[in-house]
Amino acid sequence: MTVAKAYAAMSATTGLEPTTIDRREPGAHDVEIDIEFCGLCHSDVHSIRGEWGDQQWPLTPGHEIVGTVARVGSEVTEFKAGDSVGVGCMVDSCRECDSCLEGFEQYCEKGMVGTYGAVDKRNQDSITQGGYSSSVVVDENYVVRVPESLDKAAAAPLLCAGITTYSPLRYFGVEEGDSVGVVGLGGLGHMAVKIAKAMGAEVTVFTTSASKAEAARSLGADQVVVSKDVAQMKDARNSLNLIIDTVAADHDINSYLKTLKRDGAIVQLGLPEHAMPPVDPGQLIRRRLAYGGSMIGGIAETQEMLDFCAEHGIVSDIEMVDGEGLNAAYDRMVAGDVKYRFVLDTATL
Amino acid sequence: MTVAKAYAAMSATTGLEPTTIDRREPGAHDVEIDIEFCGLCHSDVHSIRGEWGDQQWPLTPGHEIVGTVARVGSEVTEFKAGDSVGVGCMVDSCRECDSCLEGFEQYCEKGMVGTYGAVDKRNQDSITQGGYSSSVVVDENYVVRVPESLDKAAAAPLLCAGITTYSPLRYFGVEEGDSVGVVGLGGLGHMAVKIAKAMGAEVTVFTTSASKAEAARSLGADQVVVSKDVAQMKDARNSLNLIIDTVAADHDINSYLKTLKRDGAIVQLGLPEHAMPPVDPGQLIRRRLAYGGSMIGGIAETQEMLDFCAEHGIVSDIEMVDGEGLNAAYDRMVAGDVKYRFVLDTATL
Repeated sequence: MTVAKAYAAMSATTGLEPTTIDRREPGAHDVEIDIEFCGLCHSDVHSIRGEWGDQQWPLTPGHEIVGTVARVGSEVTEFKAGDSVGVGCMVDSCRECDSCLEGFEQYCEKGMVGTYGAVDKRNQDSITQGGYSSSVVVDENYVVRVPESLDKAAAAPLLCAGITTYSPLRYFGVEEGDSVGVVGLGGLGHMAVKIAKAMGAEVTVFTTSASKAEAARSLGADQVVVSKDVAQMKDARNSLNLIIDTVAADHDINSYLKTLKRDGAIVQLGLPEHAMPPVDPGQLIRRRLAYGGSMIGGIAETQEMLDFCAEHGIVSDIEMVDGEGLNAAYDRMVAGDVKYRFVLDTATL
Repeated sequence: MTVAKAYAAMSATTGLEPTTIDRREPGAHDVEIDIEFCGLCHSDVHSIRGEWGDQQWPLTPGHEIVGTVARVGSEVTEFKAGDSVGVGCMVDSCRECDSCLEGFEQYCEKGMVGTYGAVDKRNQDSITQGGYSSSVVVDENYVVRVPESLDKAAAAPLLCAGITTYSPLRYFGVEEGDSVGVVGLGGLGHMAVKIAKAMGAEVTVFTTSASKAEAARSLGADQVVVSKDVAQMKDARNSLNLIIDTVAADHDINSYLKTLKRDGAIVQLGLPEHAMPPVDPGQLIRRRLAYGGSMIGGIAETQEMLDFCAEHGIVSDIEMVDGEGLNAAYDRMVAGDVKYRFVLDTATL
């Protein structure tokens, strides 16, 4: 057992504070990772503030983990000490259902084991603890390789924000010449812009605030549409093959449907807390549109995404934060005041 | 000009009555068809009763037309007098937009010209009049061939109910070994069962009334699920690749989403009058599901569907109706009292 430094919440109302957590000795198939960086995801805030239901406390969040392999178990062949590796949103799954066998572990029919706050059945039903920590021990099947060319800190958000946007872009077959819309320009949205551009798409960013237009263009957006501007929304009609909707706040997607071409789809990535306004089936029927969802990505696909990002020089735009700054960073995330992802430097724990 | 016998509504409240309508002389590219049979579609009822907005009266409905070619224009090469032909939901479109050029005339960006009640720009802005009539004149590009092996009366509903269900089954790539659900067992639903079975799928029919189970099985359904039965709906979870939803009444699709496997889709074909209950985005996200729509099918695809039906011996289950019985038939359609489609014998006009 290793005692790791960490930040954890002791309740839904007390924020994050320094603590230690016990990490297991690496088993035969385990990889022990010295964590260097961990991205801060909105899910972390929801979990730590009890907005997604009660948790077992104390809880250390964090599922955008990048670090270096410290030790490996006796049966591990793919990783060795010193390797640059990453861990995303899950650390286990049933490994037996169709989804697991097909490489879509995120859709495991028995439920994936989240990187934090989940019951770890293969490890004495302990509750998993995330990446705001100096180390973690993870089964080799849920560890990915971080290409050396990527900046490690800026690569951390690829493990969630990157794969969450890459996966639906690939699933819907985005390629050269396609037109992709991105709703919302936060952690996920800014990754969607970069990745869709690298896939050869023309990218339109929808934003509620005209002030974000310049930022969107500097990320690579070809067009910016202020979604509250009726004339701009009308001009954008029938122009897009796919829309990546990263907004988790309740919102009406019907106006976005109109910007899709025939056979287009809007993919919801952010999970709203409440039911959203009804989708107009007439719009779906009259132009064969679809409204779908997507959740992170599989392990093999996460590796593919990291390799794609290395090939195209893509990382997240980040702002570094130290342990003491975590709670303030959460407040700024809720206010939408970050371009575009905070990353914790675990050397500061 | 030919004077054709017909039934038409003179207003939204007076029902159908015998009349005559003037059919144009066939132009160079026109096909004049002696109509033998015309299916009765729910759209006819909605239109004639003003439920889809006001119409120009008098109006003759009908867009499931089967008959024999009487005369053809000088430039027509694909059809000749005596041929068995059909006309479905549209008689023209812009022929220039991407959708038209790709064979998806039903999604014409300038709007398809419906078989009845539409402004016919290429013919002096006359209002198109449908198939409850002894003859019709239609541009050759919107006429399809009815294979000789099909019973003509029972083939008529294929022109709308058939293609409307065939098209999404093909679009979603249904094949041997897939599992398809069908919501609602009316004119569209019973065609969906037959066609999906012929494509090699295992078919589950969802119905609100247990009394329809036997009928569903006799059409070829492998399973019948009573949608109000919570236990049966639970047993059906995670079992289907695609659901064809033919119900036009407002209804909640969230319980059906649960019966889809990962990557499954529910396709709405019936257009509800009001907004439906919101779709739960969490369900879409957690198993990469989609909620989509589809509208009839293109002309080439309609021909493909007729050839497919001939190959597999598929026609509609029908009940014949004569001109005088049309209004009573409408009442029975609204009550859901028909197995599964009324077909007008135009010899009775």
